Amino acid sequence: MIVVMRKGYTEEEMTGVLKRLTELGFTGHVSRGVERTVVGVVGQTYPELRDTLEMIPGVDEVVPISRPYKLSSREFQPEDTIIKVGDVTIGGDELVVIAGPCAVETEEQVLATARAVRAAGAHILRGGAFKPSTSPYHFRGLGEVGLKLLSRAREETGMPIITEVLTPSDVELVSRYADILQVGARNMQNFILLEEVGRSGKPVMLKRGMSATITEWLLSAEYILSQGNRQLMLCERGIRTFETYTRNTMDISAIPIIEKVSHLPIIADPSHGTGKWYLVAPLALAAVAAGADGLMIEVHPTPDYALKDGAQSLTFENFQRLMAQVIPVAASVGRKVAARAI
Amino acid sequence: MIVVMRKGYTEEEMTGVLKRLTELGFTGHVSRGVERTVVGVVGQTYPELRDTLEMIPGVDEVVPISRPYKLSSREFQPEDTIIKVGDVTIGGDELVVIAGPCAVETEEQVLATARAVRAAGAHILRGGAFKPSTSPYHFRGLGEVGLKLLSRAREETGMPIITEVLTPSDVELVSRYADILQVGARNMQNFILLEEVGRSGKPVMLKRGMSATITEWLLSAEYILSQGNRQLMLCERGIRTFETYTRNTMDISAIPIIEKVSHLPIIADPSHGTGKWYLVAPLALAAVAAGADGLMIEVHPTPDYALKDGAQSLTFENFQRLMAQVIPVAASVGRKVAARAI
Amino acid sequence: MIVVMRKGYTEEEMTGVLKRLTELGFTGHVSRGVERTVVGVVGQTYPELRDTLEMIPGVDEVVPISRPYKLSSREFQPEDTIIKVGDVTIGGDELVVIAGPCAVETEEQVLATARAVRAAGAHILRGGAFKPSTSPYHFRGLGEVGLKLLSRAREETGMPIITEVLTPSDVELVSRYADILQVGARNMQNFILLEEVGRSGKPVMLKRGMSATITEWLLSAEYILSQGNRQLMLCERGIRTFETYTRNTMDISAIPIIEKVSHLPIIADPSHGTGKWYLVAPLALAAVAAGADGLMIEVHPTPDYALKDGAQSLTFENFQRLMAQVIPVAASVGRKVAARAI
Amino acid sequence: MIVVMRKGYTEEEMTGVLKRLTELGFTGHVSRGVERTVVGVVGQTYPELRDTLEMIPGVDEVVPISRPYKLSSREFQPEDTIIKVGDVTIGGDELVVIAGPCAVETEEQVLATARAVRAAGAHILRGGAFKPSTSPYHFRGLGEVGLKLLSRAREETGMPIITEVLTPSDVELVSRYADILQVGARNMQNFILLEEVGRSGKPVMLKRGMSATITEWLLSAEYILSQGNRQLMLCERGIRTFETYTRNTMDISAIPIIEKVSHLPIIADPSHGTGKWYLVAPLALAAVAAGADGLMIEVHPTPDYALKDGAQSLTFENFQRLMAQVIPVAASVGRKVAARAI
Repeated sequence: MIVVMRKGYTEEEMTGVLKRLTELGFTGHVSRGVERTVVGVVGQTYPELRDTLEMIPGVDEVVPISRPYKLSSREFQPEDTIIKVGDVTIGGDELVVIAGPCAVETEEQVLATARAVRAAGAHILRGGAFKPSTSPYHFRGLGEVGLKLLSRAREETGMPIITEVLTPSDVELVSRYADILQVGARNMQNFILLEEVGRSGKPVMLKRGMSATITEWLLSAEYILSQGNRQLMLCERGIRTFETYTRNTMDISAIPIIEKVSHLPIIADPSHGTGKWYLVAPLALAAVAAGADGLMIEVHPTPDYALKDGAQSLTFENFQRLMAQVIPVAASVGRKVAARAI
Repeated sequence: MIVVMRKGYTEEEMTGVLKRLTELGFTGHVSRGVERTVVGVVGQTYPELRDTLEMIPGVDEVVPISRPYKLSSREFQPEDTIIKVGDVTIGGDELVVIAGPCAVETEEQVLATARAVRAAGAHILRGGAFKPSTSPYHFRGLGEVGLKLLSRAREETGMPIITEVLTPSDVELVSRYADILQVGARNMQNFILLEEVGRSGKPVMLKRGMSATITEWLLSAEYILSQGNRQLMLCERGIRTFETYTRNTMDISAIPIIEKVSHLPIIADPSHGTGKWYLVAPLALAAVAAGADGLMIEVHPTPDYALKDGAQSLTFENFQRLMAQVIPVAASVGRKVAARAI
Repeated sequence: MIVVMRKGYTEEEMTGVLKRLTELGFTGHVSRGVERTVVGVVGQTYPELRDTLEMIPGVDEVVPISRPYKLSSREFQPEDTIIKVGDVTIGGDELVVIAGPCAVETEEQVLATARAVRAAGAHILRGGAFKPSTSPYHFRGLGEVGLKLLSRAREETGMPIITEVLTPSDVELVSRYADILQVGARNMQNFILLEEVGRSGKPVMLKRGMSATITEWLLSAEYILSQGNRQLMLCERGIRTFETYTRNTMDISAIPIIEKVSHLPIIADPSHGTGKWYLVAPLALAAVAAGADGLMIEVHPTPDYALKDGAQSLTFENFQRLMAQVIPVAASVGRKVAARAI
Repeated sequence: MIVVMRKGYTEEEMTGVLKRLTELGFTGHVSRGVERTVVGVVGQTYPELRDTLEMIPGVDEVVPISRPYKLSSREFQPEDTIIKVGDVTIGGDELVVIAGPCAVETEEQVLATARAVRAAGAHILRGGAFKPSTSPYHFRGLGEVGLKLLSRAREETGMPIITEVLTPSDVELVSRYADILQVGARNMQNFILLEEVGRSGKPVMLKRGMSATITEWLLSAEYILSQGNRQLMLCERGIRTFETYTRNTMDISAIPIIEKVSHLPIIADPSHGTGKWYLVAPLALAAVAAGADGLMIEVHPTPDYALKDGAQSLTFENFQRLMAQVIPVAASVGRKVAARAI
């Protein structure tokens, strides 16, 4: 961190700054410029230190210069994290496609969807059994019944399953069924939940919060990684902006940024990212072209009868058409879509 | 809701829309205009219905026209909610001031602060025992030890205490000590936690999420109210915008809006709302002038030595000065600051 | 528009609403629902009518249901607008690449860049002679001297040139040199300028304002189109959000949205959209995959010595590498990159 | 500025950085830390220098540490700017109230409003003769006819008038009639217009752009001040956020921030800041409590018949009621509302 002194600071104030730094276990390195005098803080800093230092008399502002996340950074681990789930590899050379309904509704719905997305080339089945809903008056998922239906679909199709866990006390239950635990956007800063999935031993997908900066997202990742769980992937699903045409604004630039600053795989969710089924395909292709390691797509047998998020779900036919487009776009940026073993 | 048909829709599509509405238990009321034909949806709608209806062929968009929150609305309950905590009344004619440290650190710190804010005229003591921290590498609160220190401060000063609860499994523990449970901004859509505090029987303060619309905030309030807990107050603490000078942008307009659309008391937190101690006083006065029912202010004996959020904390002296300013501003908008019984 | 009456409106208020609509030249069509009573407004409405109607006693809110833009909409003109500039076609089957320096600095710089981007396959040369600068204390372009240097580059390379015009009184001057007039993001709502370029007879590129909704952007397009100038293309260049890692957040979803709701060609500018040269290539590829009609890329012989926006400029070598990636990605979504005639 | 070297930089890279700084006329001051090595840049820097320095090999990022605005800063001029317009003083001890219709429509409308706001205690008359409109199909003001009507109202009431100027070529015309030139939010970065009003010799009010940071706003102020025009006041009128309940989100914190970092008077416009007449009074009072030097309020004889922005205009009666509330709130923060000489 760099402590910037205010113009016209006194020597007494400078002495105070250096004394306080010493008390906190740091060394100060003074640099007097024409515009400003600054003090470099030497030692292992942490985000909250900024607030502490800004309180010292004579200090104008404190500028952080090192990234606060560690385990998730490329500096810490230069090589890519690669996650194996069954016979699927996430974060390697091949693009992974996760597909399925927003919410598990019935056995017929989940089995039909699983078969359809598998036939079209998807690798992992998604489906919500515990659903966050902005309103308490609407469908919130089938709970364990939904988890059982997902398991049945896995048995039949051989696809690993990913499903959301909403609260720490459900982690154990959901882990019994799921191959990958999903932490949703609304829970990105539910720190107790992050630690619990970190302790679960299961691969985890951490979605970006609707108004989270990339730095905050990676700090949330630290909560999981610091529990010893290194099987972590991130998922960009759109951020909240002033634009109201789309449900969220998909931040495609987050994909190459994550790739640059972190070793964690990055998945794109254009279904939540746009909120409109007819925008899912162009944004999915954009994400692949920008270097995403995978896609997560909502698919439903009859989107207009879906209990949740029908407007952003693809029909089987539209999903099949999307897969046919994904393959050449992935190839054009040097990436293969893994063929499913039959 | 209003279903807007796309230009050039077919009669077959119109028939389909009306049939689908009937299946869903609604009646459709067609209105053919020069620009557009619309179908009014008659019946008790819910937010997700919009998605369902937008999937029907021939539909251009669906426009919600009734507010999705109910129990929190003024239409449902025209008279103000008034909450009694000890001898303090929140939501009535008198302005309530909540003050104390961001985090409970030591017995000396919490007791000294409690005495100082009480002497200056505060009514309720705040202090965090369980702290959310964006980074796993920093101070996260003293836990139950912190709750015990708060209780000791209550015993000595007679002030009721408010403290944050982070996760459903802590609700029982925190309820044993706290007079008011606080749900923080990051947990505004932690729906399981909302229901748990709803069942606790304790008064609750629900902070607005950093990127939550007013409608989403009130829908989160529904989760608590619908558990039968009507002792609920809201707290505006700033929203995330592009401006980086302040930590958040305090949405002062939310105060009169909540007062108009809801019966719940509304508290303002200019400490988190601005993130800078020298902005706390002007924004506190602004909130009072705009009609807030109360203020929540961070105070620390030595802000520059605070373990958390020192930069936004007032010293005892600054808090005392603020209280001296709050009284005439409150009076100027017809509000008294309750005198503390000695 | 739909007028939503407040709950418990009186019959007198309803009579007032219908009377006012008649005065304004509209017809009201009443629809009484269980939740709400609404009045459909029949006639050719306009955005400001909403404000007018919301003032009538008994009205709760007014909901616009038709899009306020006309000439730019697909409903008005279903077939794509195709613009011919010299031998370059914009908005047709072939992807167009615009490249060049942010600002024209010297003859050597602009000529060297023109040759390099032409050799790499670009179709149109960009370069700023009049530059908007947030600070009055920095470089603001060479003015007419810059226009002359661009013309010289056109003569030598045969590439049409695009350059920004900042103020109405410069339109005539800039039109004498430029093949395409660019209206920058900061001027998207400089309505007098829009009309002036509308009258110029020159093809125009209208950049999206940093905080403009898609609807506002298309309304600005109306200003140009309504002057009889139909040679208009749009350019997405990133919007302002809370994320600070990038200069702006590139809204890739705007590309398929514009394609759906408008007939105007849509160009993507990942240089301004990201502000960082190492993000330009992935975002350029993403834009092509999402269906953009063209790219606009900043290229500089020595970005680290550029007078403006060096951090987001590609070197000749990086631009060449990008072009080699663009061709297969474009092909993968069924688009050719036009070969330059030699 | 501080140049932060990337981890593992080479000595060759460090030499390159220092050499480049020397070429640019700066001195580099190296500080080697445990986490990072940084180079302080000694000399008079400017915003674009950041981009230039970030391009040098070995540099991780460049952190600006001095504020880029000068003439508008308190460091440059510690004492408040005070502007005299007729017998009205802006920026001094007394609160100034500007009121009038959004747009000048008819002689009756503007005269009746001028009389009413004067009687209620307003000091300056506002009214738009040239109006920016998002759509080309709607009312855009009466032009010079409107200016004449405003002059007539000034003659009759003695109130100075403020009106917007939209384009550089109108500055001369508008200056002939207006006492204060207003630059609207959409033109905050219309730099040519800023310079032109800077040269006009007239007092200017510069509104904050809808998505402008405080730093950008003050940089736009520099354009006016650097032309030698020091009679400049700023106006906060709401920023664009994700919240859709209000037209904009009024950033009340901008008021004390401007007061801290700049000597320019700061006016609040709660009419545009909220877009809803029933929010104007609470936000006006909030602005006064936060320390605003003045208010700008839209008033209309019959808001429901207004050609523009009726929904945010107060009736005469509501304006009178507001003035009665403003006086005690201003007094409570030590400010008088100047009495109008009769």
